[in-house]
This record gives sequence, structure tokens and C-alpha cells, in this order.
Amino acid sequence: MRAVDIIIKKRDKQELTSQEIDFFIQGFSNGDIPDYQASAFAMAIVLNGMTPFETADLTLAMARSGQVLDLSKVVDIAVDKHSSGGVGDKTSISVMPMVAACGLPVGKMSGRGLGFSGGTLDKLESIPGYRVDLTTDEFIQQLKDKGIVLTGQSLDLAPADGKMYALRDVTGTVPSMPLIASSIMCKKIASGAQAIVLDVKTGLGAFMQTLDEARELGQLMVDIGRLAGRKTVALLSDMNQPLGSAVGNALELIEAVGLLHGHAPADYYEHCLHVAAHVLVLGQRAKTLDEGRAMAEKCIANGSALEKFRVLVQAQGGDVSYVDDISKFTSAKYVQVIPAPRSGYISQVHARIVGEASVALGAGRYRKSDPIDHAVGFLIQKKVGDKVETGQPLFEIHANDEAKLAEAAQSVLSAYGFSDEFVPPLPLFYE
Amino acid sequence: MRAVDIIIKKRDKQELTSQEIDFFIQGFSNGDIPDYQASAFAMAIVLNGMTPFETADLTLAMARSGQVLDLSKVVDIAVDKHSSGGVGDKTSISVMPMVAACGLPVGKMSGRGLGFSGGTLDKLESIPGYRVDLTTDEFIQQLKDKGIVLTGQSLDLAPADGKMYALRDVTGTVPSMPLIASSIMCKKIASGAQAIVLDVKTGLGAFMQTLDEARELGQLMVDIGRLAGRKTVALLSDMNQPLGSAVGNALELIEAVGLLHGHAPADYYEHCLHVAAHVLVLGQRAKTLDEGRAMAEKCIANGSALEKFRVLVQAQGGDVSYVDDISKFTSAKYVQVIPAPRSGYISQVHARIVGEASVALGAGRYRKSDPIDHAVGFLIQKKVGDKVETGQPLFEIHANDEAKLAEAAQSVLSAYGFSDEFVPPLPLFYE
Repeated sequence: MRAVDIIIKKRDKQELTSQEIDFFIQGFSNGDIPDYQASAFAMAIVLNGMTPFETADLTLAMARSGQVLDLSKVVDIAVDKHSSGGVGDKTSISVMPMVAACGLPVGKMSGRGLGFSGGTLDKLESIPGYRVDLTTDEFIQQLKDKGIVLTGQSLDLAPADGKMYALRDVTGTVPSMPLIASSIMCKKIASGAQAIVLDVKTGLGAFMQTLDEARELGQLMVDIGRLAGRKTVALLSDMNQPLGSAVGNALELIEAVGLLHGHAPADYYEHCLHVAAHVLVLGQRAKTLDEGRAMAEKCIANGSALEKFRVLVQAQGGDVSYVDDISKFTSAKYVQVIPAPRSGYISQVHARIVGEASVALGAGRYRKSDPIDHAVGFLIQKKVGDKVETGQPLFEIHANDEAKLAEAAQSVLSAYGFSDEFVPPLPLFYE
Repeated sequence: MRAVDIIIKKRDKQELTSQEIDFFIQGFSNGDIPDYQASAFAMAIVLNGMTPFETADLTLAMARSGQVLDLSKVVDIAVDKHSSGGVGDKTSISVMPMVAACGLPVGKMSGRGLGFSGGTLDKLESIPGYRVDLTTDEFIQQLKDKGIVLTGQSLDLAPADGKMYALRDVTGTVPSMPLIASSIMCKKIASGAQAIVLDVKTGLGAFMQTLDEARELGQLMVDIGRLAGRKTVALLSDMNQPLGSAVGNALELIEAVGLLHGHAPADYYEHCLHVAAHVLVLGQRAKTLDEGRAMAEKCIANGSALEKFRVLVQAQGGDVSYVDDISKFTSAKYVQVIPAPRSGYISQVHARIVGEASVALGAGRYRKSDPIDHAVGFLIQKKVGDKVETGQPLFEIHANDEAKLAEAAQSVLSAYGFSDEFVPPLPLFYE
């Protein structure tokens, strides 16, 4: 078998066999197949596509390029929850303790923020001491002992994916459904997930801007899961405007912990309960979504979800006093409320503009190596469908630099749209 | 400007500017742009194509990646003739001396054979001492002094093309009209050609197997020539069966020199006169093709074309006595005539099969580094449209190994097709 013949086959729109895909990915992973062949292969995939079978084979080949965890001896059903990324999406931080408190052990490996989209690890690191670099052994031990883990991606898992992603980033081969779907799913499979709830975001602040694209990605990942023998459900949720109120690392963490304390913005609360219900059903703790939702609500009401979060933070070396007293988080130097410049109904809060403004404040990264500022960000007080009067609070900026604060005010104001006519609120989920 | 943005633009089917193409090719040539970006770019071109404007820009950018010869002070009009490659195509060796004898100076840089297709340099090296590695200065001086040069491609010319070709070969990005056309034309432009006659082969033994493909390639190269300010003509000629009789290095050289002595297979003679007439018209030595043809015939008849070839061989260090006495060429150890296995009309002499059989005998290379045997090859005595009786000579094998001889007999017999019905001869040129 020769790499060039596999490239030619894909170039000529023929379907590749499992053996061919495996040969290419293992060769690329161990360095036998050079970058210049892998990038030509990736471009051929971007332009000619892949069938769901090929995509599943690609996913499994990438998963097998490193260690594949077997959690079947640790838990009954290893469940995972993945979001395709967006602005203000702190869902995992609330949902994981909720479902763990319902008796379903959950171990999750998360990512960092890049570009306008935030990352769970950065938010968790707002808590002093919190470790996101657990070893695989620590991951397994904590899952067994505590029933909850929330850490970073182990470097041993799916190394071909990391190598391929770095190459795609510089060769114009990022936007491809099969490449995106396999990149997400291979990490889930390598980390031992047997049941996966996918939260695919769509809208102005998502990577999938249209509902059709999001649906296609969701369906493809469900197909991959099925072909790989993993139970998989994909939800399509709105990302035209930020989720909840908080955007920024500590601000989002506070909002996520707030939900466990029993207070949170209505849209964020609804979103989390919906996701938690799906995780509980897929993990066979609940028979129906209604039952799952009721269980999750109960765990919030009786404090067991919050307690599970405390257990998580303590297990990973974080200072639990921050969970109990959110006033301990370092505040930004400048906090300013921006009033509505006119009255009317809010017709838009452009999520991507808000996300980019947040990066500009220092909450995110332009490059992987950039440092971040945990304290800065926004509280979005008025959202689509809300009625405002001139001068009422629209959003709040938390900044550590006066010039950046002024810029951020301008940017986020430009993200807002107003209408004299009634505007209905945006849906939380589609379909 | 960033390489990745140029790749993305081509991936998304947008037209690239001259500046973008130039940036990419110069960057690739000097090593700033790595192979893995160039191969993704090449795959995007293979799958999304290029406009004639983009292709002309690509051609000029590759020509400018090294030295570009200016021959305007050496000759009135620098003419060049290029064949897209085939089996038994020794045309340049006959045509260059003919047109030089008509008073039109010609300097040509040729290539070596690869795969089933032979190369002019290998054929010329059948003459002991003949040098094909002239320096650029030697090229210019000999063109000025002798009016004829036939040597190898200088390494200083269009280095980006050589680098790109090596990469295309291993990344499945060879078959692309813009990439093939620009690769041919950039070398012509860099070597200073102001007028170019392109002989585009089509058929079973050509890279362009269909007439449509050959026409498209010819038209694209004419477009590039026009946009680059070079007078360019493309001829479409048949390569379903070998051209002339001889296939193999010394055998072809002998046939080409034979034409200058006044005896040659009829199809080869016609082919050469047609090409020579076009070169003479484009080089402004003749007003019409008929006039050009008559001039060329006269130069053969009066011995001046043969004399010009003697001048060429002597100037490049070759032993001229071989030109005067072809019996001096080393013969192959075994020469065997293969008789027709049946009677009828010849309906096919599959050029590619004959070319591959010739490589198997040792006349060609599988890899660039393979040595070659100048003595071996075939004389194809019966061609499409000929009537044969069982037992009449069909072709002659020249071999240095008995086992290979037997194999070659089998292969070339399989290249032949027979019909009981009349079969017309193949055309020499199309359109």
C-alpha cells in the first residue's frame, strides 16, 4: 500500500477502505507519511467529502493512534457530554455535578478556548489551585473514588488528531464535516465514552452558522457513534446570542456555580436541565427526559449537586472556599454598566461580536500560547426579545484597562440590534 | 499576505491575483512556504482548476523563480519546439537541423525519458561523447556561433517547477491541466523562447489520451503563450501507435539521422515536414506552410540539414563518424524478426504497450536514477492500415537478454490488433 495511491483514490472521488484509512492515519501518526502527503489528503477530503463509513473509519483510526481508555471496569456506563463551542457556554460546569449527584459517574476531558469561543478549562482555572492536568491514572482513580472528573485532554489520547489539526490549521483544510466530526469523536472514543450527548451549537457565534450545517454535523457524529458502537445523541442549540448572562472566565464560573446554588439566568437554567436530562437518560439513570429533568432539579434543590462540585474542586486541588463564597474571586479593576441608547425590543445580541470583544478584553487567546485574564468579561443583561427603555442597563463590562473598556463598550453596543416591533425570544434548542 | 489565505481562496473557488500567485511560488521556491502548504495548494488546483489568467500568472511566476534567458541579442526570433511526449517520437532530432539549415537558429533544451515515454537526451547520448550538460553560457555561445543547440534543461531555469513537480509526483497532484501546462510553458519561457511550436500528442501512448484533453491542453498553452507575449502554435498529433518505425535510443537516433540522409518511414517524414513548416513560419523564415515545407525538403535534398546535424554533434563533443556511418552504433546481441501470426489488416499497434515493452528491455527508466541500454528496442514494420499475410515480418526486436527478448515478443504481439475488414491508416495530425 502506498500513501500516494490513497490520496489519488480520494482525489478521484472513490471510497476508501478501512485498511487504507488505517494505513494512512497510522503512517501519518508515526511519521512514515510526511506532512505534505497528509495535507494533500486533507484537501482532497475537504473538496470531495467522505461517506459516513469512511468518516467512522477515520475516527477509529485516529482514536487508535494512541491509548484508548477502557472504563467498563470503572463505571457501568461511561457517559460524556460535548459542546461544539460558543460564547457564554459554561454548561459542563453545571451539568456534570448535577448528573454525578444523581448517581451517574462522569469523567470529562475538556479543551481550552481559542478565538472567540471560550474553553471550560480556562473557566475552571479561575479557582486557585484547580488542576486540569490529571494523568490517565489519576483520571481513572478519581472517577472511581469520587464519581466526577473535569480535566484537560490527555496528550496520550488520539495523538494523530492533534498532529492533523495543527496541519489543517495552516493548510486551509479546517472546514470539512468529516474532518471536524472525526476530530471531535475520536477524542470521545479514545477517552472511553460509551454514551455521548453532543450539544451542537448553531448561529452567529457558532462554528456551524446555519441550522443545516449544524444538523449535518450532528447527524454525522451520531452516525460515527453508531458505527463505532457508542450510544450518541445530538442536540441542536442556539448560539446566535451568548448563552446565559456571563461571558468571561471567572464570571462564567460564578454563573455556573450560581446555578448549583439555585440562581441562574432562565435560559441558562433551562439549557442545563435539558442537557442533564439527556445525559441521565443515555446513562440509564432515568427512563424518560421528564424523569431525568426532575432528578436534576431535585439535586439542585437539595444541595447535592453543589456538594458534588465541591468534591470535584477539592479532588483536583482547587480552593473550595471560592465555591462557597464567590466574593473571593478577584474582581476586575473597572466595572461599568452600559445603558440602552434607545428604547425598543432587543432584536440581536451578536454572539460572535461579544465573543471577540471578550478576547480583546483579555479573556481569550488569539494564539494558543497567549496568557489570559480570568477576571474580565461581560454580563449581558438584556437579550433578544427583551423590552428596554432608554437608559436602562443593557450590559456590564468587567475590564482591567480603561482603553480596552471603552473599546469593549463600542463593540458590544454594535452587537445589539433594536426594533420598534415586538421580537420573540430566540429558541434554546432546535428540533 | 499569508500562504494559508491563498490556499483557502483557491479551495473556495475564488480567482487568485497575480500578486498572490507570485507570493506563493516565490515563497515555495525559496523555502519560506513549506511543502505541506504547497501540496494542499496543488490539490486545491487539481480539484478546483485555474482560469487561463491564473495559469499564465503561475507560469510566469515559476519562470521567474530562476534565471530567465534573454536571447533577443543572440538571434532575431528565438524559436522552440516542444513535444508532450510519446513512443518513437524522435522529431526534434530531425527537425532542428532542418530548420537551422533553412537559416533559422534554434536552441532547444530537452528532457530525459521517464516511464513509457522516451527522451531526446537519451537518444542523443547514443552518439559517443555527445554532451547534454551545456552551461547557459555555452548554450548562448553555440547558438550564436553554430545556429543550433540541443542540450539538457539547465538547473538554473525555473527551479520552482522542478521542486513542484517532485512534490506533485508523490501527492497525487499530477493530472491537472493548469499544472501540466504551466510546467511545460515556464521552462520554454525561462529558456528565452519567443515563438513556440507545441506538438501535443493524443492517443493510447500519450499523456492526453483523448482528443478533447489534448485540445484543452494545447489551447491552454497557446493562451499562456499569448498572455506571456510569446507567439505560440499547438499541433495535435496522433500517438495511438508509435511514430515512425524505431523505438529505442540508438534505433531512433539512426532513424532520425536517416531522414536527414533522405530515407525515413513515410509517416515520420510527413510528421517532421509538417512540424518544420510550422517552425519556419513562426520563425518568419517562410510566409506559408507550403513555402516552409518546400524549404525544409530542399535542405534535406541538398544535404545542408545533414551537415547542420554534423555541426551540432561536433559542437557538443560527439563522434561525427557515427553520423556518417550508422553501422558504427553498437548493435544489440540478439535481433529477432517476429512474423505475423495471422493475415489481415492491422487495426492497432498499442503505443503504450510498445513503450512499456521498450522500458522492460532496458531502453527506458522506471525511476529517474535507473541506467539505460542504448542499443535495445524495436523496429515496428507493420502499422495500422497495413495488410499482412501470415508469416510476414511484423516487427523486429533488438535485445541484450534472451529472456527479455521472449517477454518483449509476447508484449508487442499483444499490442497488435488484426481485422479481416479494411482498416484506414491513422491520421498524423488532427484538425
